[in-house]
Amino acid sequence: MTTGLKIVTIGGGSSYTPELIEGFIKYHSDLPVREIWLVDVEAGKEKLEIVGNLAKRMVKEVGVPIEIHLTLDRKEALKNADFVTTQFRVGMLAARGKDESIPLKHGVLGQETNGPGGLLKALRTIPVILDICREMEELCPNAWLINFTNPAGMVTEAVLRYSNIKKVVGLCNVPIGMEMGVAKLLNVDHSRVRIDFAGLNHMVYGLDVYVDGVSVKDEVISLITDPEKSITMQNIHAMGWEPEFLQALNVFPCPYHNYYYKSGDMLEKELKNFKEGGTRAEVVKKLEDELFELYKDPTLAIKPPQLEKRGGAYYSDAAVRLIHSMYTDKRDIQPVNTINRGAIAGLPYESAVEVSCVITKDGPKPITMGELPVAIRGLVQSIKSFEQVAIEAAVTGDYGTALLAMTINPLVPSDRVAKVILDEMLEAHQAYLPQFSYSMV
Amino acid sequence: MTTGLKIVTIGGGSSYTPELIEGFIKYHSDLPVREIWLVDVEAGKEKLEIVGNLAKRMVKEVGVPIEIHLTLDRKEALKNADFVTTQFRVGMLAARGKDESIPLKHGVLGQETNGPGGLLKALRTIPVILDICREMEELCPNAWLINFTNPAGMVTEAVLRYSNIKKVVGLCNVPIGMEMGVAKLLNVDHSRVRIDFAGLNHMVYGLDVYVDGVSVKDEVISLITDPEKSITMQNIHAMGWEPEFLQALNVFPCPYHNYYYKSGDMLEKELKNFKEGGTRAEVVKKLEDELFELYKDPTLAIKPPQLEKRGGAYYSDAAVRLIHSMYTDKRDIQPVNTINRGAIAGLPYESAVEVSCVITKDGPKPITMGELPVAIRGLVQSIKSFEQVAIEAAVTGDYGTALLAMTINPLVPSDRVAKVILDEMLEAHQAYLPQFSYSMV
Amino acid sequence: MTTGLKIVTIGGGSSYTPELIEGFIKYHSDLPVREIWLVDVEAGKEKLEIVGNLAKRMVKEVGVPIEIHLTLDRKEALKNADFVTTQFRVGMLAARGKDESIPLKHGVLGQETNGPGGLLKALRTIPVILDICREMEELCPNAWLINFTNPAGMVTEAVLRYSNIKKVVGLCNVPIGMEMGVAKLLNVDHSRVRIDFAGLNHMVYGLDVYVDGVSVKDEVISLITDPEKSITMQNIHAMGWEPEFLQALNVFPCPYHNYYYKSGDMLEKELKNFKEGGTRAEVVKKLEDELFELYKDPTLAIKPPQLEKRGGAYYSDAAVRLIHSMYTDKRDIQPVNTINRGAIAGLPYESAVEVSCVITKDGPKPITMGELPVAIRGLVQSIKSFEQVAIEAAVTGDYGTALLAMTINPLVPSDRVAKVILDEMLEAHQAYLPQFSYSMV
Amino acid sequence: MTTGLKIVTIGGGSSYTPELIEGFIKYHSDLPVREIWLVDVEAGKEKLEIVGNLAKRMVKEVGVPIEIHLTLDRKEALKNADFVTTQFRVGMLAARGKDESIPLKHGVLGQETNGPGGLLKALRTIPVILDICREMEELCPNAWLINFTNPAGMVTEAVLRYSNIKKVVGLCNVPIGMEMGVAKLLNVDHSRVRIDFAGLNHMVYGLDVYVDGVSVKDEVISLITDPEKSITMQNIHAMGWEPEFLQALNVFPCPYHNYYYKSGDMLEKELKNFKEGGTRAEVVKKLEDELFELYKDPTLAIKPPQLEKRGGAYYSDAAVRLIHSMYTDKRDIQPVNTINRGAIAGLPYESAVEVSCVITKDGPKPITMGELPVAIRGLVQSIKSFEQVAIEAAVTGDYGTALLAMTINPLVPSDRVAKVILDEMLEAHQAYLPQFSYSMV
Repeated sequence: MTTGLKIVTIGGGSSYTPELIEGFIKYHSDLPVREIWLVDVEAGKEKLEIVGNLAKRMVKEVGVPIEIHLTLDRKEALKNADFVTTQFRVGMLAARGKDESIPLKHGVLGQETNGPGGLLKALRTIPVILDICREMEELCPNAWLINFTNPAGMVTEAVLRYSNIKKVVGLCNVPIGMEMGVAKLLNVDHSRVRIDFAGLNHMVYGLDVYVDGVSVKDEVISLITDPEKSITMQNIHAMGWEPEFLQALNVFPCPYHNYYYKSGDMLEKELKNFKEGGTRAEVVKKLEDELFELYKDPTLAIKPPQLEKRGGAYYSDAAVRLIHSMYTDKRDIQPVNTINRGAIAGLPYESAVEVSCVITKDGPKPITMGELPVAIRGLVQSIKSFEQVAIEAAVTGDYGTALLAMTINPLVPSDRVAKVILDEMLEAHQAYLPQFSYSMV
Repeated sequence: MTTGLKIVTIGGGSSYTPELIEGFIKYHSDLPVREIWLVDVEAGKEKLEIVGNLAKRMVKEVGVPIEIHLTLDRKEALKNADFVTTQFRVGMLAARGKDESIPLKHGVLGQETNGPGGLLKALRTIPVILDICREMEELCPNAWLINFTNPAGMVTEAVLRYSNIKKVVGLCNVPIGMEMGVAKLLNVDHSRVRIDFAGLNHMVYGLDVYVDGVSVKDEVISLITDPEKSITMQNIHAMGWEPEFLQALNVFPCPYHNYYYKSGDMLEKELKNFKEGGTRAEVVKKLEDELFELYKDPTLAIKPPQLEKRGGAYYSDAAVRLIHSMYTDKRDIQPVNTINRGAIAGLPYESAVEVSCVITKDGPKPITMGELPVAIRGLVQSIKSFEQVAIEAAVTGDYGTALLAMTINPLVPSDRVAKVILDEMLEAHQAYLPQFSYSMV
Repeated sequence: MTTGLKIVTIGGGSSYTPELIEGFIKYHSDLPVREIWLVDVEAGKEKLEIVGNLAKRMVKEVGVPIEIHLTLDRKEALKNADFVTTQFRVGMLAARGKDESIPLKHGVLGQETNGPGGLLKALRTIPVILDICREMEELCPNAWLINFTNPAGMVTEAVLRYSNIKKVVGLCNVPIGMEMGVAKLLNVDHSRVRIDFAGLNHMVYGLDVYVDGVSVKDEVISLITDPEKSITMQNIHAMGWEPEFLQALNVFPCPYHNYYYKSGDMLEKELKNFKEGGTRAEVVKKLEDELFELYKDPTLAIKPPQLEKRGGAYYSDAAVRLIHSMYTDKRDIQPVNTINRGAIAGLPYESAVEVSCVITKDGPKPITMGELPVAIRGLVQSIKSFEQVAIEAAVTGDYGTALLAMTINPLVPSDRVAKVILDEMLEAHQAYLPQFSYSMV
Repeated sequence: MTTGLKIVTIGGGSSYTPELIEGFIKYHSDLPVREIWLVDVEAGKEKLEIVGNLAKRMVKEVGVPIEIHLTLDRKEALKNADFVTTQFRVGMLAARGKDESIPLKHGVLGQETNGPGGLLKALRTIPVILDICREMEELCPNAWLINFTNPAGMVTEAVLRYSNIKKVVGLCNVPIGMEMGVAKLLNVDHSRVRIDFAGLNHMVYGLDVYVDGVSVKDEVISLITDPEKSITMQNIHAMGWEPEFLQALNVFPCPYHNYYYKSGDMLEKELKNFKEGGTRAEVVKKLEDELFELYKDPTLAIKPPQLEKRGGAYYSDAAVRLIHSMYTDKRDIQPVNTINRGAIAGLPYESAVEVSCVITKDGPKPITMGELPVAIRGLVQSIKSFEQVAIEAAVTGDYGTALLAMTINPLVPSDRVAKVILDEMLEAHQAYLPQFSYSMV
């Protein structure tokens, strides 16, 4: 019998992979990874080889006994896996560009995770993840699926509702970024910060914020109304908040809430950026090209510091930290996407939610958060409704269902505009939407 | 001991009152009304006398033994009342004009019932209704309060949560209008139509639609996508619906849903109307003035047919029909606003909802509607969140809570714009918002 | 195209059938029954012919154009049926005798509907009803299934959870008996009494009791503490209630609650009766034999008055009244067993409950009852847990699940005694429990 | 400003106190207790002095700087406390004897925590705990109340519902005993065992059982069917379980479940013991007397090993472990009684439940357990109904409510017997039930 863990990373050719490798190296003493399989599709072969060779140099450099395998054969990779991580992007960055630009053309925010762009990303991604689940069922039925492909909340719920894989966790770097942001703002170490996270992926709130177990929520809320001190992400411009609004809201919003509580202002800014210099996807594309140039350097054997500008800070770190806690039954608290089961009262029992969990060998166990404050219930349920309808559209390929999802999205101004945007986007992404082929005839 | 019922109508000087009187005359054989007290405030005295005198002529004309009393003394009126109906408007039509025009000035729909305008209407109205409740508790503790002052849903919930009056029903003419619309569309008698209503006031859906007990929902949905056949109200321009959207939505929306599923288009149209000819409030003001001219005619002793253009069609009819069914324990089905108690799963147990009820002497008993379809849950919960926060703001007079309500309203684009609109509206309505006097210093 | 309704009655050879026929005759003017098919099994052939011939004489006597068909071919009968009523008894009265006597032998109440006897009755009956559902799906997919085979609550829930038939109603004579009892107690006409029924079959409470829409609950509760005025059934000995207990309970219990709130006293009484004269099943058997002797009389062409002593008073009356209201979309209120969907908060959404419903052509629509009073929630949920486990045992034929159901029944004192009783009962009913054949090897 | 913690122990004269002192000594390095106030009532003065002097010797012996204060003045003790622990017993062991013996006299199990005896214990204890809460509100509003006075679940819920103290935790040694039992059974260290606890106090189940994060539930269930391997308590005789029953139940029951799943057998055994040698209370009384003899020994300066036979093993250990984790924000998992808030779906949101929690400085945060398995929902809800009615009786002193609680308890066979037992018990405990004085006139 072999010992050590087999890790499979689907979308292994991603620019994030060096961070993941760095994480597995760091934790190797009590997370005995034997082999890491980096899997990608034909179109990503070149990137897979570049980043895969860097990965090989990294493990060699530090001398840990991890084998790196590069393959386009997903089934071979999945066989007997212990953990499967997914970080693929159907249609790559070019698709993301369309997710952002087509809505903007019609005066609507694209918001590639839970806006119109996110709908199309879900339509492209969910059928692929369900294929992976079917293969896992056969080839590695006991493996855990750690998904960080966006829209991570919808992908997790699709797996929970439409596959036989129950061992799934969705992971996002937004909550960990919020913790890091608070630590920096208050000038304390990250380990001393704990946040009661509750909500949905990219729609998560800190219901309370603690340092050393003592609530500092009021202080954090007071500080972040200042745009200079706003806690945000690479890709979201901080605007600050109206102080009386945020005090009355009385919870700590995530950066993506700018899209909902400031949709008018965000739209204006994105339209301006779009006219001036293109979408975020184009910025990212440029960053990625630069990163891959660095990765090609045969003398490079560490994760290059430039990767942190990429916008996905902490993603891979969060993934390895999660796998480590699961493997060691560490019972520490981490925010992940998992089945609700009443952890957040008022959201569907069977739905995926993003919530602080105790991480055990048996998976994440959500901490009970109770009822959401009245003021945030509506928006959270709106996005959950959108997510559920979007998932159904992805699975059925039904045009009306997709139009329904688009129309009920809070960023979309009418059924008429929804139809215009949807039609143009379905056309643009046709190659990645086989389930809609009939609708699009 | 006196026999017969004492009815009190607060806001008795309303132009709707003749319809109410007509109703009580029509049902007099088994709804033995002994006296009707029309109550108004000093500012409405002239209108009260005009309409009150018409009411007296009406009962005299047909010879029913109903006494009409006109008074500015609300307490005297309430003493030993059996039913109290409320149709007052704090600040009268001038206030409604501001509710509509101030948001429009800032590019936002006013929507005087559950939009920014509705928030201010709630802030003005709720303290008055709670005063009335305190008086009822003392003077007529066994009376039923039948409220049709808008925002009827919020007013009902405010009574349920913040007063000791539990015998309250909120009434709206939207559902009855939808039934009438279906009857006309399908060319059948109104009595043959039954709709499973569920939702909130001005945010109600027909979950199913029946003629003679057989579902005709698909047919209705198919017909109303045509703007010519749309079922709407005097004050809402019909635009039709994207057919695939409505089929996927798979429920029968109310006219006010145009504000949410077509907010962009509605805004455009209202801005155009506003520039051209003012707000709906101004149109209504003109209609009212004409009506009161008619009412003054000492030879008039019936409800004049022109009243139906007023926009509040069926309001008083619905009120008398309700009181009649309650008094006679008729057990027929009518849609009203009442406490949820699980009738609509997923909405708060203690909240007011608009739902089909069996009308008994012991009050309305909601028919169980189960879970709302996924696609509509989010919007309904959003409006309910807005309502709950708005009610809290009305009761506490807290500025931040009012700003929170304004910001989370789906029609408002950002916390920044919310603050601009709110500040201007609080200023404009200052005379009717004593609870905010401290905030406004 | 044929006009008029086709009714199929499974278990048509029952002694109750004349009441059913009488009902269809009574309502014939607006419930146009064309044909009634009485279906039975080979073992019941003789009774089917006796009662069927009486049915034929009854319709002939009054001259209504209803055809009576007698058959052992269930599939032929079901073809194109409009309503299917089920009143069969697997194993006939002999089986009921065992359901009662075997537990008593071990010092435990049999309680043939939701006690140990009820468990075995469920195990025998549920597979048969699911067979009927499969046939209905094919032969009359639009028909309504009106079940009054006991245990009616479990049978209804089994159909809802384990068949594709959604048009099912479970019917019981207990609630109508409670209404009649109140009418008699207060000396008012039955039509003036309305009860808010909520609970489970044979575990239903009147949450409130009205005469002409005014609550008389306190009076009823006060009266029925007197055993002389207790409202009960032929088969349940009235014992009255401790007055302070019933006042604190503050709801109107059903006769079967004697088994739970007075289990000790009931057991004592049944043990005494058992020693003296056998079980209730034996009494019923004797009554039935006498009835069939009467039915044979070729000059008899009406329902004989002796039938009312049989204990199932109002059963068939309730059934025809229900079918009549459904067919005519009458929208009156009747208590039936149907899917909960939140009507009774705290009970499972998908479970069958017994609750006051508005009866429409589209089926029964439960009136929202809200949370059960705290004091009764536990017992109701206990019985529901028992029912759910019992149904699962009936469907799976799993011995452990059956033992679990038996042990958690509130009437059973221990897992040890449960096993003794279960083993003896499985053995005794072996012929009717094919799904347990493997367990019983 | 003083540093270090002030601990107050109400019922400080208990024989358990040395274990508590031992715990505070053990954890002193990172739980800086400055002073411990042992409080008792006049009747317990002698015991307080004996055990208090032992406590003083214990801290002196090891040289930790903890001051021990003995007092009968509760208010003086509570002033500025950080943690208040309650382990008092109203009426002392003599009262427990009556709780057990009076029901037995009438053929009913006393079960002093959630049976008839538990009802009377609740009636005596809850008014006292609410007095303490009122004093805490004034004298130490930021303190945590750690209650281990039984019935701990009812006491916790009474505090949550009827006091202004929200910082309350109920503690019991049953769950820790179950963990210890599993550890011993499987021969692993306690730290490797984790159980998903869910239910109520003395009605708690292990939904799953893990060693090193891997489920061993099936193995545990299989082992404990053997009475020799049953996990039980000093005061509950192990009887083993019917294997097929326990496998179908599929959760790990607590020792007190013997009273419910084996009530017949337990009753038989207790009646036998009662006739032979008296109640458990008498056995405990004898043990206590022996312990106090030991405690008097001025050379004794450690917790004597004989204390472990007392039956309350791990109680004080659990208490100190909990306080330690709270103080240090340890975030480890411990089972306690706390407000549900959806942690266990289907139980009331505001009720106390016993559930695995993450222990933080901000209190216990329940891990979400989801729906209880169908088979156990009924019994748990039955006991919760009983608890809620019992608490209401304790607070109101209403005789009918007390009779209702007694009658709905699953161990009580009828309203009639309930009344007999209740009347006798109210009489016997009259001195400690001032709120019932009116009823008992």
